[in-house]
Parts: sequence; structure tokens; C-alpha cells
Amino acid sequence: MNFISDNSVGVAPEIMSALVEANRGPSMPYGNDDWTRRVERRLADIFEHAVRVFPVATGTAANALSIATLVPPYGSLYAHEEAHVMVDECGAPELFSGGAKLRPLPGAHGKLTPEVLDRALKRDNSGDVHQVIPTAISLTQATEAGTVYKPAELQAIAEVARRHKVRLHMDGARFANAMAFLGVPARQVTWEAGIDVLSFGASKGGCMVAEAAVFFDPALAESFGHRRMRGGHLVSKMRFVSAQLETYVADGLWLKLARHANAMAQRLAQGLTATLPHLPGARLLHPVEANELFVQLPAGIIAGLRQAGFQFYDWPAEEGQAIRLVTAFNTEAAHVEQLLKTLRELIGRAA
Amino acid sequence: MNFISDNSVGVAPEIMSALVEANRGPSMPYGNDDWTRRVERRLADIFEHAVRVFPVATGTAANALSIATLVPPYGSLYAHEEAHVMVDECGAPELFSGGAKLRPLPGAHGKLTPEVLDRALKRDNSGDVHQVIPTAISLTQATEAGTVYKPAELQAIAEVARRHKVRLHMDGARFANAMAFLGVPARQVTWEAGIDVLSFGASKGGCMVAEAAVFFDPALAESFGHRRMRGGHLVSKMRFVSAQLETYVADGLWLKLARHANAMAQRLAQGLTATLPHLPGARLLHPVEANELFVQLPAGIIAGLRQAGFQFYDWPAEEGQAIRLVTAFNTEAAHVEQLLKTLRELIGRAA
Amino acid sequence: MNFISDNSVGVAPEIMSALVEANRGPSMPYGNDDWTRRVERRLADIFEHAVRVFPVATGTAANALSIATLVPPYGSLYAHEEAHVMVDECGAPELFSGGAKLRPLPGAHGKLTPEVLDRALKRDNSGDVHQVIPTAISLTQATEAGTVYKPAELQAIAEVARRHKVRLHMDGARFANAMAFLGVPARQVTWEAGIDVLSFGASKGGCMVAEAAVFFDPALAESFGHRRMRGGHLVSKMRFVSAQLETYVADGLWLKLARHANAMAQRLAQGLTATLPHLPGARLLHPVEANELFVQLPAGIIAGLRQAGFQFYDWPAEEGQAIRLVTAFNTEAAHVEQLLKTLRELIGRAA
Amino acid sequence: MNFISDNSVGVAPEIMSALVEANRGPSMPYGNDDWTRRVERRLADIFEHAVRVFPVATGTAANALSIATLVPPYGSLYAHEEAHVMVDECGAPELFSGGAKLRPLPGAHGKLTPEVLDRALKRDNSGDVHQVIPTAISLTQATEAGTVYKPAELQAIAEVARRHKVRLHMDGARFANAMAFLGVPARQVTWEAGIDVLSFGASKGGCMVAEAAVFFDPALAESFGHRRMRGGHLVSKMRFVSAQLETYVADGLWLKLARHANAMAQRLAQGLTATLPHLPGARLLHPVEANELFVQLPAGIIAGLRQAGFQFYDWPAEEGQAIRLVTAFNTEAAHVEQLLKTLRELIGRAA
Repeated sequence: MNFISDNSVGVAPEIMSALVEANRGPSMPYGNDDWTRRVERRLADIFEHAVRVFPVATGTAANALSIATLVPPYGSLYAHEEAHVMVDECGAPELFSGGAKLRPLPGAHGKLTPEVLDRALKRDNSGDVHQVIPTAISLTQATEAGTVYKPAELQAIAEVARRHKVRLHMDGARFANAMAFLGVPARQVTWEAGIDVLSFGASKGGCMVAEAAVFFDPALAESFGHRRMRGGHLVSKMRFVSAQLETYVADGLWLKLARHANAMAQRLAQGLTATLPHLPGARLLHPVEANELFVQLPAGIIAGLRQAGFQFYDWPAEEGQAIRLVTAFNTEAAHVEQLLKTLRELIGRAA
Repeated sequence: MNFISDNSVGVAPEIMSALVEANRGPSMPYGNDDWTRRVERRLADIFEHAVRVFPVATGTAANALSIATLVPPYGSLYAHEEAHVMVDECGAPELFSGGAKLRPLPGAHGKLTPEVLDRALKRDNSGDVHQVIPTAISLTQATEAGTVYKPAELQAIAEVARRHKVRLHMDGARFANAMAFLGVPARQVTWEAGIDVLSFGASKGGCMVAEAAVFFDPALAESFGHRRMRGGHLVSKMRFVSAQLETYVADGLWLKLARHANAMAQRLAQGLTATLPHLPGARLLHPVEANELFVQLPAGIIAGLRQAGFQFYDWPAEEGQAIRLVTAFNTEAAHVEQLLKTLRELIGRAA
Repeated sequence: MNFISDNSVGVAPEIMSALVEANRGPSMPYGNDDWTRRVERRLADIFEHAVRVFPVATGTAANALSIATLVPPYGSLYAHEEAHVMVDECGAPELFSGGAKLRPLPGAHGKLTPEVLDRALKRDNSGDVHQVIPTAISLTQATEAGTVYKPAELQAIAEVARRHKVRLHMDGARFANAMAFLGVPARQVTWEAGIDVLSFGASKGGCMVAEAAVFFDPALAESFGHRRMRGGHLVSKMRFVSAQLETYVADGLWLKLARHANAMAQRLAQGLTATLPHLPGARLLHPVEANELFVQLPAGIIAGLRQAGFQFYDWPAEEGQAIRLVTAFNTEAAHVEQLLKTLRELIGRAA
Repeated sequence: MNFISDNSVGVAPEIMSALVEANRGPSMPYGNDDWTRRVERRLADIFEHAVRVFPVATGTAANALSIATLVPPYGSLYAHEEAHVMVDECGAPELFSGGAKLRPLPGAHGKLTPEVLDRALKRDNSGDVHQVIPTAISLTQATEAGTVYKPAELQAIAEVARRHKVRLHMDGARFANAMAFLGVPARQVTWEAGIDVLSFGASKGGCMVAEAAVFFDPALAESFGHRRMRGGHLVSKMRFVSAQLETYVADGLWLKLARHANAMAQRLAQGLTATLPHLPGARLLHPVEANELFVQLPAGIIAGLRQAGFQFYDWPAEEGQAIRLVTAFNTEAAHVEQLLKTLRELIGRAA
């Protein structure tokens, strides 16, 4: 029973059908095709704003190429110290930006705050050539801690960004899960909240290999086409990436799939909230808002869950041991229930 | 009727089935899956040599990442002046190598010769810090002119490379077409001929998004894993890339598909060879060995073909005008015949 | 009266004479000259070890080029969060390494400790391609806080480095001041303490434009020559850089000049230690060991010192306001006394 | 007797005096000093145009940093195939630009022509993301062949550049020699001829370590300060670089020194023109306009000159063997005469 990650599950059947469907007759390569054009139009509808959309195969590509359009080699990017761009992309933003400096910032539950950002930007914005120029902030939505920025939180950060003249990038690897949690129009957490570029994730949400960089300001996108090609990220048979994206965002499939994943996470969270208080040292490390749960547990309990057939990653914790449980578009309620049942049994046995 | 490119056609049905098949149950992400392991074993069988295989989504990624493992920032790479790595990857080898120098060399019909390489390497291997260090050569197989290096030609180049202590990379975007033409064991044009790394193309051959860097010397591959991640080229749901590759190389599918494409090209070539002599200034610019044809034609004839519904790219020619015709795994013989018939009619009318 | 920095003072007369002397007749350019060869021999004597020495014009060049030989683009470098390489070189290590990640670490009085390093290396050495590979540590000697690593402190850090298989770079912009303070053989704080490469500073010590990268392991230096040229750091009339270095290290001039600067700093420190206790909130922020003093003072006192003709930089402090006072090879005792006297008067008036 | 290079000679006495003079009292570091400000004003006078001036220590730094402000990573730079930026800087333009593509072009006597540039720009300006964007041309004045672009030649090139929207960089390592030859106002071969940035050489002209990037359009210079720092090229005791430049350009010293070097070259050229016709296969390879001579000579004669105590570099020649003779600000007429006399004797003996 798989709680490893939302990229260890397969592909939603609607997406697979779209691929089969797209495989009829020839089409122009490199994005000069109807699927790609339709994706752009559909995302413009969803965001209620003109957008430039660049499909790519990986989230790291969407992030690093977007960041490279915002941050010059002698600039810096601020992100949470646990952000994917900071610690899990093997320096991709550094590569694509030509060696920009990434500055890690702390924050509870995976979130940056206006205060932390303001302090850092005041400290670093020296105007002296000895220091790199602060040029952008990257926020993850939903965060790496499974939490979600609310519109007001984003607006407060955008206000700090505007004051210090820095741009805003959003890593939306799990943007669908954030949107499903928030239930607000997409514009409220993107361009209305000052976001310049969004890495719109789709692979984790149910696609096969499909992500997109979404620019709300076309001027910023000017070099993206060349940067994508130069990065080896212009897929030649692009229609097969775009067909995934088109089906994913059409008719609300993306939100439907995310709502399921989130619902499974909530079910897990409720069970854990009821169960963990009986186990000394066990607790949920972060509020459960999207589709990830971080649970501190005794080593014996963790081993017991694994022995019972559950798969998940260990996770670094400040004290004790922790695991990460991720739900996905196709997580079965029965598996959730079984995990909770097993946990209760293990606790009972441990008592 | 499409003669645009082998990346404007769709996906072979066997590949599509493999994708559907691979979509059963969960698997570990990032290449820790059985499909990826099987691809490596199958390619080891095909090359009769231990190999390290790294699937990626694009040929430019396979090329540029491979080159980056061979060429340091202060090194240089030699390639044909028309090579894809030289003129069609928007500087990807420069990006991934950290700014290495690409040195273009001339050569008839898209091929480098031992003589041209020896002269360049003698000229450039100064041992002086003012000059970048010659470190690798990239050969395209089949070439950008649709021709194919024979084993003896490669061995002669490898001998020059050995003498000057430079490595050999092979851009095999159309490696299958070259192999189908040559009909020799794959080892004869790879590691036996001194090739250190091969970009093994599969997208143009009938896959959807699937290429692989194939290392014949594991020591050279040491940094590839990190470089691939850092380049944003580690696909998270990797099994879907590897499943394509596995099916493509299993049971000789890759060669079967390439043989069809080549046969269609030969049929076109035979028809053109019979027809073009009746048209002043018209000729095949290169021998037809793989699946590309380059035809010099009067502007009126080119326009006539387009009007009759044929699609293809214009191509730069030293004199007059030229077009490129590409056949693929699913090119229909009827389309080939129709093109030849239309051409004969246009020539008749022009006479 | 100048306490701005040891790079705002001029050039020691012995150095100026060496330049005049070196200007006799022609010599081969680019370091193929006798001065450059002699510098290497003299530094080998001083370090009691074979060395490869590469003169350059700036400390940032020495640092960034050295680091680039130790850290691949997909590697990381650890340094104190206030280190020059971290915050004052506008990302030079990132540029020359091809985008390596610099990871800032905290530490009292500008120093890294074995504990902090061990914890960070354990955390980051995942072996997973998602993370950059920890490959080197940079230590500043004397530190940016004016303190000095003792041989035992360095050995303890070297032991951590060895265990985690990372290399050690030393930024010795004020290496002479550290050596003058320690009074031990140079080997004890360099290769005997595991240092692989030293940026040997000379400009701040009394030269005009002269620094050098000193490698204790020739294998590590292999690419330095090409990297230096490629970085634009191979001075054509090199003898004039090397002549400075030769005179600086011959006959102990470097230590003599540093001893004077340190003595002036101690004189200031003693005066401040006697005076500051009478002023609420005033204190020395760090132990005074080399030639820099960091003094927390009330804003009015700082303004008063400036009005009296003293020049120095404001310095960021966690609370209140602070200044930095730097002494140099030619700081006059009378200026030190006058500063202390003025301070006493200002305090008296403030009381 | 030294004809090796103008960087193997020493420093003009006026420059050495300026260094001694500049070593009085403290001054602000990093270019915030009066010498640096005066250099900018003096160059504005010389060019009769507002300029931004950035002193650096090497010509490669001036070139590569200037080019980096003009050419993005996904852009290309055109230069003569023998240009210093192309073959003698170990890829510095590639490093500082973040991996831009340098495209070599042929041309007689070291010069690019409008025709060659127009053809290349037409060929390469595809507007397609597969190709890097042509963004700048670099011209060397005086050229690497010792020839000099006339104002009309530059204007014709500028017209091509304007039409194709590419910028113009001038590598002026021997700009003084070019100006001394031309005898026209400096504006005629710089901003009036469309030059955007000039690498103003001074080391070869008689300085010790002093070059400058001179921008005629301040908007282009915006990032230069950060790029210079990041490149390790902001000399801390900058006044000593600027003091050289100030004296060099004040009161026409630069032209006076260059006129002497050129006059010695002309004297050599006249002697060779009279002598070489008596020697089969011997000839001057290029017109002698600045201070370099390229002479094809039989191997025995070359050896004879060396045996007689003359120093010079061998030089690659299309056929036979050649040498380069360089004169400098302090080349003695007696050495020139002696070389010509020795050559005549060697030829007499050979006959």
C-alpha cells in the first residue's frame, strides 16, 4: 500500500486516453500544434488573465527555467530553507541562472513570512557591487510541509516584494492540491497576489510527464523559448505533453483529482489526530492542508507499519523519527483505513 | 502528406501499448523501477558490452549532458559545422559543459574525416593555457545529411582521437536508421569503434518522449546522475520513459521501424534518381542512406508540390533552392508514390 | 586618520622598490619569468612543503579559482555565513565553479566549529542525486571577525573534513596577520592541518596588487592554469605581480608588516578595554587577535569620532550600532592614541 | 634583443613615476578614488563623448566582461577566426557570458568585412529557438595581423550591425597603435563608427597592469560593476591601476609611446621590404600598419636570427614557416638595425 509519493502512482485514465487520442495523424513538432495552443487558452480562462504557457517534462525544469528569467547571474533568490528549489533540485536554479545565489530562509510549517523576507531583503539590498542583487522570491504552493498559503498571506508577501522591487515565482508542483484546499478563484493566489511566474505542476496530480511554466507578464517570458531549447527542455513531439495538460485542466479534472487526494489526506489526518495522543512522542508535525502528512512516530511503530506492507519515506525531524505519507488522485480509502487500523493495533500492542 | 520530420509523426502502436501496460500499480519514482533496469540489460545485450543507461526526454538533453561529462569548461568539442549539437540546440552543450568551446569543422555530406580532424587537433593542441584543451569529438549517426558512417570510417576517426587523447561522443538521434542501413552488429559502430558515449535516439524512431545516454565506460558516467537531475532531466515517473525504451529495443522493434523508414526513403530516392535528370538544376544533394533526402529543385516545382498537399521543410542550399524530405516508421508507400507522380507531372508541365 | 581598511592604505616602500627594480630589461610574459619561479621556491621554504603557486591580482580571484578546482558544479561549499566568499564576492565562487551551491553556517566570532560542520555534512551527504554533493569547506584565516583559528581548532575541523571526504580551502586574505598572532610555523595551520589550497593574501599586508593561490597537492592544481587564463586572471606582465610577492615573503617582511598592524590593533584593544566599560552598551564584539576591531558604540559617539576626523566603516550589529576599525602595516601609533583620547573625551562629555 | 611581444617589455618610466606618486596617504578602495574619477573624465575628453570607464588588470577581463554585457547566454558573438577573444583567451567570453556561442569568421589580414558579416548574420538570424540569437560582433583594433581598420571600414561594418540589430565590441589591446597609425580623432573609430564598448588596452602600450572597459552607452554598462566584482576583477587598491591609466592618457603619452613602437615597426618593414625579395619564399604576410610584423622565412634563417640573439615567437603560417616580430614603446633603433643587418648577412651566406 503506497504512500511513497504522488509521483510513484501511475497516470489517471483520462490522461492515458488523451495520449491515445492525440496519436492520430501528424502534427508540427516543437509546440507548433493545436494541443499546445489550446492549453494556453484554457489556462488563460482558469487564471482569468492573459498567460504565456511553456510545457516541459519536469517540475525542476519549470522551476529552474522560470527562475532564470527572473534572476540574473549576479542576483539572488530567496526561498524557504526546505524548498524543493533549495535542496532537492541538485542546484538546477544555479545552473540555469548562470550561478545566481540562493538564500535560504527559515519559517514554520514550510512557509515564508513577510517579516522574515523583509528583514532579509533589508539586510541584503546594499546597492554595493560586493553583494549580489536580491531579485526574486520563490514560494511553494502547496508547501513542502503540506501547508497552503492563503490569499492574504500571499498578498502580504507580495507587498514586501514590491517594496524591495523583487519578483515572485511560485513552485506549484502541488498547485492543484492547494487550489482544492482553498476553493478560491486561481487568480487570487497568482497574479492578483503578485505572482509573476507559476510552475504549474501536473505530473504529481495525475499526468505522466507534464508541467508548465505559466507567465502572467509576457515581457518576462521573452527569453524563455530560447532558454527552454538551450536547456534541452523543448520536447519534439510536444503535442503529447500538451495533450496531457489540456485534458488535465479541461472540465476541472485537475481539481477533481486533487480533491480526492486531499480528502484521503484529511481522512488520514482525522484518524491520526484521534490515535496519536495515545502514543507518547507521536504527533503530526504540520497542519494537514494538501495531500502530505508528516508524522513523528516511535521507531518501532514505523517498522511495524513497514512490516505490515505500507510504503513511505522516512523524513528528517528535529527530534525523534518521522515519516511522510502522501496521498494521490487514486489513493484508495481502504488503504487509508487499513493504515489507521494497523497503527491502532501497533499502538495497542506497544502499550 | 507529411514529409516534415520523423518527429511530426505520432507514436508506434507498440509503444502506446507499452505505456498503457506500464500504468498498473505504483512503482518507485526517479528511475528506481524495473522498466529502467530492464532497459539497461537489453541495451547491454544489443551492444554486447556492459553499459550505463540514463533515459531522458529529449535528444538535446542526451547530447548536452553526455558532452558535459566529457568536456570540461576549459575544453573544446569538435563537430561537423552542420551538426545538431553545433547549430540546432541553441547552445545546450555550452550551457551544460559550463561554457566549453564548440569548434565547427567542414566535411562533405555531413561527415567528418580523419584528415580534417587530425589537422584541427594538431593546430589546436598547443598545451598553452591561452587555448582551450581539445577533449572530445561528436559524430552524428546517421548524419544530418542523411548519410551513415561505416565501421571503417569510424575506426579511422577513433584512431585520430586516440592519438590526440580526445573522447568520442555519438549523436544517435537516428541511430536506428543508421543500423538498419548498415546491417552490422551495433558494437561495430560504437565501443569497438572507440565511441565512449552514445545518445541513443528513440523519439524519432517511433517513441513518444524517450532518449537515452548510453555509456560504454562506467567511469565516464560517474557525474551523469547528478548532472541529469541538476539539468531538470530526471523524469519523476521515469517508468513511462523507460517502458517506451524497453519496448522499442525489445524483439528488434527499433530496427523493424527503421527499416520501414529507410525503405520508404530508398523508394523516394529511386524515383527521384529516375526523374530529376530531366529537370535542369535538380538533383539529390547527398547519398540517401538513412531516412532523409535533400533535393535541389526549382522554386516553381517546390511550390507545386506544396500546392498538391505535400508538407516538408525548405533547406539551405549552396546554390538554388532545396527541400528536405523525411520518411518515418509509418510513412505510407502510397504517399511516396503520389509524391513521385506529382513531381513527374510538375516536371512535364514545366517542360 | 584612516581606520577604513587595510586596502585603503598604500604600498609598503619595500614593495614599491621591488617594482622599480623589476622594471629592468625584458622578460617572458604570463609567468614564465624568474620572479614567478622564485616566489614558488620561497613559499615552499616557508611552508616546508612542495607547493604550486599561482599569482593573481585579487583575493576574490584567488578564492574563486581555488574553490572551482575543488568543487564541481553539482557540489557544495560550506563557509561561515559572514565569510567573504559567502557575502562579499558577488557570487564569484558560483561563477567560477559553474554554479556550485554555497551553504552558509553559523558560528561565534566568525569561526566554524567541528560540531557545526559535522552536523551539516551528516545532514547533506545523502548520496541522492537530488542533492548537490558536499565537496569542500572554506575557512578564513584570520576570520572576518578578526579572530584566528588555532592549529588544534583547524586539526579538529580537518578531522571532520576527512571523515566526510571533503576538501579544505583557506581564505588567507589576512593570513599574515593570523601568522603574526599565532607565532607558529606556517605548516601547522596549513597542510599539516589538512588545508588543500590557500589563498595567500598580500595586497592587504602591504603589496599593491598581489595575491596567490597556493596548492599543497599538485594534483588539485592541474586545471588551475587554464581556469586562471579563462577567468582573465593571467596577468601578462606577471613579473610585476611576482616581484611584489617575492619581496613580501623574503626575509620575513610579510610577518614584520603584519606584526606592526597587529600591535596597533592590540594597542587600540587595550585602550578600548579600559574605556568602554564606562559607556553603557559599548563593547568589543569579538576578541582582538589580528588587525580588526569591531566596536559597539552609541550613535552619538560614532558621529563624534567621525567629526574628529577618524575614518572607518559602520558595521552590522545584532543590536545597537557598531563600527569596524582596521589597522595596517603603516598605522601610526599617534593616530591610535588620538583615537583613544578622542573617545575618552566624547565619553566624558556624554556622561 | 627582444621582439617577443609588447608585454615582455617593462613599464614606461612615466607610468612607474605615477605609481610612486599615487602611493601617498590613504584613499578609498574599490575605485572610489580620485584617480579613477579622473581617468573617466580624461577618456571622455579623448573620445569627445560621455563614457563609463571600468579599469581592470587584464585585457581578457576587459574583453570578456564587456562581451558579457552585450551577449546573453543564448546569444552569439562574431569575431575573426584568429581573434584573441576567439582563440587566445581560453574561453573567457564563454565563461563570463554564461556559455554564449562564439562564431569564427574568415577574413584577409585579420579583418572582418561587411560582406562576410552580412552573409553570416543572414544565415544565422533565423528567429527560431533552435538557434542562438546573433547579438554582437567583436573587432580587434589594431588586428591580430597588425593591420588597422580605417574609419570607413568600421562604418560599413556598423551599417551591417545596425541592420541586423547586433552590437559592436572593439578589442583595443593595441588601440594606441591603431590611433597612432590613423591619426584621426578617436571618436571616428569608436562611437561615431557604431562601437558600443571598447576594451582600452594600456599594458602593451607601456603600463604595468592596466586596461579599461569603456562604454559609450551608459545603459549597456548597468551590470558591469557587479559582473566585474563577481569576476574577481575589482582591484581593491584600484588607485594604482587608475594612476597608470591617468598618466598613460594624459598629455598624449599613450600616442607618443605608440608612435615610437609603430615607427620601429615601419623601420623594420622598410628594411624587410628591401631585403626579402632576395630570398625565395620569404615575404611579409600582412601589411605593416601598427607594431607587429609577420614574416615568412626559411627555417635556416629563423634559426640564424635566434642564434644571433634575437628573441621572437614562431607563428603559424599556411605554407612554410613564419615568425612574429613585435616592437614596443622602448624598442631601440639599434636593435632594429642589427636585426636587419643580421638578416642580410644570413641571406648572403645562404645564397
